[in-house]
Parts: sequence; C-alpha cells; structure tokens
Amino acid sequence: YDITDEEALKIILAAKKEAEATDVLVNIAVTDAGAHLKAFIRMDESYLGSIDVAIKKAKTARYFNIDTGTLGELTQPGGIIYNIELSNGGLVSFPGGMPIRNKDNVIIGAIGVSGGSIEQDRAIALAGIKAILKK
Amino acid sequence: YDITDEEALKIILAAKKEAEATDVLVNIAVTDAGAHLKAFIRMDESYLGSIDVAIKKAKTARYFNIDTGTLGELTQPGGIIYNIELSNGGLVSFPGGMPIRNKDNVIIGAIGVSGGSIEQDRAIALAGIKAILKK
Amino acid sequence: YDITDEEALKIILAAKKEAEATDVLVNIAVTDAGAHLKAFIRMDESYLGSIDVAIKKAKTARYFNIDTGTLGELTQPGGIIYNIELSNGGLVSFPGGMPIRNKDNVIIGAIGVSGGSIEQDRAIALAGIKAILKK
Amino acid sequence: YDITDEEALKIILAAKKEAEATDVLVNIAVTDAGAHLKAFIRMDESYLGSIDVAIKKAKTARYFNIDTGTLGELTQPGGIIYNIELSNGGLVSFPGGMPIRNKDNVIIGAIGVSGGSIEQDRAIALAGIKAILKK
Repeated sequence: YDITDEEALKIILAAKKEAEATDVLVNIAVTDAGAHLKAFIRMDESYLGSIDVAIKKAKTARYFNIDTGTLGELTQPGGIIYNIELSNGGLVSFPGGMPIRNKDNVIIGAIGVSGGSIEQDRAIALAGIKAILKK
Repeated sequence: YDITDEEALKIILAAKKEAEATDVLVNIAVTDAGAHLKAFIRMDESYLGSIDVAIKKAKTARYFNIDTGTLGELTQPGGIIYNIELSNGGLVSFPGGMPIRNKDNVIIGAIGVSGGSIEQDRAIALAGIKAILKK
Repeated sequence: YDITDEEALKIILAAKKEAEATDVLVNIAVTDAGAHLKAFIRMDESYLGSIDVAIKKAKTARYFNIDTGTLGELTQPGGIIYNIELSNGGLVSFPGGMPIRNKDNVIIGAIGVSGGSIEQDRAIALAGIKAILKK
Repeated sequence: YDITDEEALKIILAAKKEAEATDVLVNIAVTDAGAHLKAFIRMDESYLGSIDVAIKKAKTARYFNIDTGTLGELTQPGGIIYNIELSNGGLVSFPGGMPIRNKDNVIIGAIGVSGGSIEQDRAIALAGIKAILKK
C-alpha cells in the first residue's frame, strides 16, 4: 500500500484550500509510505524556513507513525526519548505532521504542514488527510 | 517578480500531463526566483533517486540562470568550470533543468525534471514552462 | 579484542528472537570495538526512524562505554554534559544502547535496539548481549 | 511488495558464504523497496571504508533500479548523466550494487557489496540475490 500521486495532489490542494479559508500561509509536504517526498506546495509569502520544517514534519510522522505533536510530549527534557530530534538527519517534534491512512486504516504516507501556529498547522494537515477519506 | 503557487501548480500539472502522454515516469520540481522549492510531484513508480535530482536540476537552473544541459558542457574534465557540481551542496549538470520566465522574459523560478532519458526530461520541463505562457 | 562477524550475527539473531517472543518490532544494530557498523537487521513493520536511532544507540554506547540510558541522566538541562547529543554527528541518550563485553569483561563492541518502549529496547539489547556469554 | 527480514538475512548469509568460498573480505548491505537499510554484515578484517560504500551501492541500485556498474557507464566524463553521484547524498556508480527481484520479477529491495574487486563484489551480490530465488 502506498499513496498515489493523485491522492497526494488531492491532499495538498485540500490542505491549501483550508489554509486559504483560514488565512494562514503554509508549506505543505506529503511523503509516501517510504517517507520519501511525494508532493509539495509552498504558498506565496509563506516562510522560507518552513520548507524544511514541513518536509521534516512529514518524514517524522512516517518514521514513527505518529502525530508529531504527540512525539514532542516524549522528547522534552526528562522525557523518555529526550533529544531524539537529533537522529535521522533532524526530526521535528511539534504539531503539524501526521501519518496518512487509507480507508482501511493502513498508513500510506504522511503530511507535514508548517507556517502557521502549531494548532493551525495541525488543523490544515488534518483537512488535507480527510480529502482522501471522503467519498 | 516571483512565481506564484498557482503558476507552480499549473506548470507541474502540465509537465505531468506531458509525461503521461509520452509514457515517462518522472519527478517534477519547481523553485521560485530565490531557488527555494515551490512545488513538487513524484509520479507513481518513478525512480526514488530522481527526487533529489529533480530538485537539484531546478536549483541549478536558477543558480546560474541556465539550461542544466548547457551548464554540463562547461563542467566536463578540461572544461572551464570543471566540477562546479561540487558547490552549492551538489549541482546537477545534465539536461532536465531550466529557468522559468514570465511573458516579459523575466526569470521567476526554475523547473527540474528527472526520471526519463535526458531528452525526455528536458521536453517535459519545456512543456511545463509553456503552460504559463499560453493565453 | 574485537567482536567477530559470527558473534555479531549471533547477537542480532538472539535479540530478534527475544523481540519476537515479546511481540516488539525493532531495529537491531551491532558495532565493533571501533564503533563501526558490524551487523544490522530491521524487523518487518518496525519504525523507519528506528534505523538511525538503533545505529546511533550502539555508537553512543561504544563512544562512551556506557548504557545509553545512564548517559541520558547526565545530558538533561542542568546536567554535567548537557547537549552532548549534538557531538559526534548525533548521539542518542535514552535506553537501548549497551556495550558488548566478552567473557573477560573486555568491551568488544556495542548493541543498539530501537522500536519498542525504552524498557523493551533495553531488555532486547541485553538478551542479545547474553547470547555470546552463554556456553 | 517488500523484502522481509528473513529474506534479507538469507541473502546476506548466502553472499557471505560466497565471499568466504572465494576468499574475499566484504561488507554486505541489503535495503528494502524504499531504499532503507534492512540488513547488514561486515566480515572480519574487511575494509572499514566499505561500510558506507556497500550501503550506498545498495541505495543507488534501488534509487534507479539498476546495476550500479551499468549506471557507471553513463556517469563518466562526457556521459549523459555525468556526476549524478553528487546527488542523493552521494551515490556509488561502480559494480557491486543490484536490485533484488522476487520470483515475479518485482523489485523488493537491493543489495550492495564492497571490499573485493568490482568483479568479486558483483559476483557476491549476485550469489546473495539468487538465495531467495532458489526453491
């Protein structure tokens, strides 16, 4: 099972639409099941620094099959996996990255959104994911 | 002057359409005028190694405002800029990367295509670029 | 004194067996006395992000001849070697990495396990190490 | 379709056996279909520098679904993809890396062997691959 290019495009366009509707400027990255970049879009005037953050959020989400925000709760000082961000060439452990599952709940890729507040990034990621679950 | 996200998407979709019409599996990257990734799509079953090559082709084309194939003629052993590929974190100097110009001939970004033969990659890049010049 | 390839394989297979017996999906890395990768196995469906974490755990354990969990107690904010994880191309300082000693208590390599809880990773590492101490 | 840990181990052990039978000291790496490290073994006294070469050979073979020796014919000065080795964090374009196919000819991973002559490396890689095709 792996995400298709059409699914990845659908997700990115749905996430971008959500970002526009809520007036947030973001970078949106989608990886496949192997954590390799599948699709990407950067909205005009969004942060340049968010290119890498968005891609790393998506990769992180797939590397550990986890909402990046949930990962971040475990990586704080004193946390059980403190500083795991230093592995894998750099991980991102705050909200905005999420695994993408198909209708059978199998992980087929991941999305990473960066540029807004962490709540906004996560909401936009979620809107993207939902695009391929709708009929 | 800078490419917009809508233009980048239009270019990527046109390049993908050309690739599908000619039965080639490619990765397509578009950068903005600052040589930063603006949009990207990887076609299903295209080479994993072409992700980075496509992005580097687009960056190379904008770094030097040149068709990457033309650059490659200068970087061969004995060439005037031999091994310039080692700069900038890795350049790609064979065909498939091209600057994107607007209707006034101002460079607003670049496209990089990888996955087919170098002739196919270049033709697909060209088809992408033409998409924003058409009325 | 250095670990042999046969010992490394034995350790990896014993660790994998322990992981299977306890229903944990892990990546297992073994380095030699020089902290260089000697053997590695990734169990099916284990985290992709654990490849690098397992290897870094093993390297960290040998770099400082220490249980990585013990190291982590010293690297917290306010700790005496705060942020040492940033050295050596990235260290991992939570449990799952341990030096491997021969029957004479000489360090001959290290093991790193990643994919389960930190307690599970450490237990699996320990099971691996014990494999070359048994008669 | 993806290689299993049991298949990867079988390949590595068969390649190691071939290396021993022909008196060659090598590093052997196997990646999965996503080009991620799946299994690895370094024979005693083989080159330390071959760890990275073996892994990069396997990745290169999967990145472009090609025998790395065949790739190398295209990357020479004047070749159509001169210097592509500089992409993807470093590729290896001499023999010893090969895609692994299952019985239905689907690529499920790749193997990389380094430490002997390029002919020896390639022969050992081939012996590894054949291990999962035999009944």
